[in-house]
Amino acid sequence: MQKKGELVSFRPDIKVMDCTLRDGGLVNSFMFTDEFVRELYRTNIKAGIDYMEFGYKASRDQFDESKFGKWKFCDDDAIREIVGDNDTDLKISVMADVGRTDFRRDICDKANSPIDMVRVATYINTIPAALEIVEYCNKKGYETTINIMAVSKSNDADLDDGLEIIGQSCVDEIYIVDSYGSLYPEQMRRLAAKYLETADKYGKKIGIHAHNNQQLAFANTIETLTMGVSYLDSTVLSMGRGAGNCPTELLLGFLKNPKYHITPILKFIEKEMLPLKEDGIVWGYDIPYLLTGRLNQHPRDAIQFTSERRTDYADFYKFLYDKDSF
Amino acid sequence: MQKKGELVSFRPDIKVMDCTLRDGGLVNSFMFTDEFVRELYRTNIKAGIDYMEFGYKASRDQFDESKFGKWKFCDDDAIREIVGDNDTDLKISVMADVGRTDFRRDICDKANSPIDMVRVATYINTIPAALEIVEYCNKKGYETTINIMAVSKSNDADLDDGLEIIGQSCVDEIYIVDSYGSLYPEQMRRLAAKYLETADKYGKKIGIHAHNNQQLAFANTIETLTMGVSYLDSTVLSMGRGAGNCPTELLLGFLKNPKYHITPILKFIEKEMLPLKEDGIVWGYDIPYLLTGRLNQHPRDAIQFTSERRTDYADFYKFLYDKDSF
Repeated sequence: MQKKGELVSFRPDIKVMDCTLRDGGLVNSFMFTDEFVRELYRTNIKAGIDYMEFGYKASRDQFDESKFGKWKFCDDDAIREIVGDNDTDLKISVMADVGRTDFRRDICDKANSPIDMVRVATYINTIPAALEIVEYCNKKGYETTINIMAVSKSNDADLDDGLEIIGQSCVDEIYIVDSYGSLYPEQMRRLAAKYLETADKYGKKIGIHAHNNQQLAFANTIETLTMGVSYLDSTVLSMGRGAGNCPTELLLGFLKNPKYHITPILKFIEKEMLPLKEDGIVWGYDIPYLLTGRLNQHPRDAIQFTSERRTDYADFYKFLYDKDSF
Repeated sequence: MQKKGELVSFRPDIKVMDCTLRDGGLVNSFMFTDEFVRELYRTNIKAGIDYMEFGYKASRDQFDESKFGKWKFCDDDAIREIVGDNDTDLKISVMADVGRTDFRRDICDKANSPIDMVRVATYINTIPAALEIVEYCNKKGYETTINIMAVSKSNDADLDDGLEIIGQSCVDEIYIVDSYGSLYPEQMRRLAAKYLETADKYGKKIGIHAHNNQQLAFANTIETLTMGVSYLDSTVLSMGRGAGNCPTELLLGFLKNPKYHITPILKFIEKEMLPLKEDGIVWGYDIPYLLTGRLNQHPRDAIQFTSERRTDYADFYKFLYDKDSF
């Protein structure tokens, strides 16, 4: 796989996607204040971020509205209250989870919506259902992506088949998603090579969504971008489920495109993110997440362990290890 | 450069060096309790760690003994109080800084010392002085290393010359040291290729000492080890100056050599490291360190900023940026 770009150059095809509300919303049940969201929107514009993901288009039949903030559902009107007509270069994205969205009811024509992109999150065995949403949204006029979650659990043959089917679809971008934060750079590069092969064949772009369980989210992102991956997910101060994501402030420090500016992000951290931390919202790299990541497991046990303020790491490791044993 | 080893295999030439006391000592002025040091020693033995660095052989003429714990000076007797005759596979290391050590007075024959290895830290322009210490220690019977600090500030021609001189010496290992935590994996691999070329030519081994300013210490360590770097510095919970180092718990999670065990490290974190944190000892990745790392600067301004509990990151970034401007 040829290297694309040098450390001192920049690639104009790079797009940075801010997922702070969407992945960060998994930490605080999407209970962001309007002021926070408005400030993040302004910050992203100033920082030169390309996409801002507001949250999920989740099914109201499946999720109790009283238990979540509005960004779990991302009504067009709620977005419009923040962005008006969004007369900026920042594009707006929402995520739809296969099986957890009433997309036919909740996603209208793009012409009538402030949303630009719909990202469809799927496991490898639900790709046909994901494609159904993608085709629907494509016809409605949206840019679409398919994000294959938990790829570290997929086998090579299934992934090859999945990528081939996705390649033949109308989707615009395909994402590598390291849901468990278990992949090392060497493995990530191998995956990126595979995804980029499909991208070249079918004229798609490839994205990466990394988790920081082993402090590798930033490393994996810049290693794969060097190979040609161009859609880069990040969150401010790495806010996201469990160990969080590739930190926007690190990513913008690396990218050489003069359109990106780190200073607005630094101001946002000081003004909006530190208060969240002080309010007791917990995310980011910690020992329990290292352990689930290392064992290629879902972070849910680590989230539980952390929420109970336990520190018996050795016992926890034994518990996780035994769970996976035969 | 050929890849050495696969993700599922292990390289028997790998050596893990625990620098918790030495680099961590820079955070708390080496004020560790004997119980902490004894527990760390026992932990390292159980975990299969290869070397434990106790601290510095610093000059008593230059440093006031009342201001530092004893591991700033690492008297043989102090080490012996912890390890007895050290009848174990764990080797004991100390560091000597060029220009800050009375090595002729303070380093005796290895036959009479519990110390196995002396690591000499040098900047590129003091390599001749470093070699003087190396030759002295080599004659006294010690394994020796040269650690070229702040390599991110060296130019290629100087580094080539320096490596050539070091290669011709009696030193056993040569360390890549990313003092400012500013190097990306791509740059680290390029450096490792250069160092390994010297190693192959002169029969030396190469080590890596990484800092975590950009959350790359672990990534850079495993990326270069895959190329053939074999001496790997790490600290428990990444305790070290500023953003700290490659965390031992992450490194042992990656290494496949069955001699390494993560559980003793997890127990040590719970029992000994968390209390240090609770006592207000501060280290580890944070925004100010990201900024000095990204700008390839010494972390001293970030350490100062952090100690003042400031959070005006944008102003701090401007200050750092302007400092380096013409």
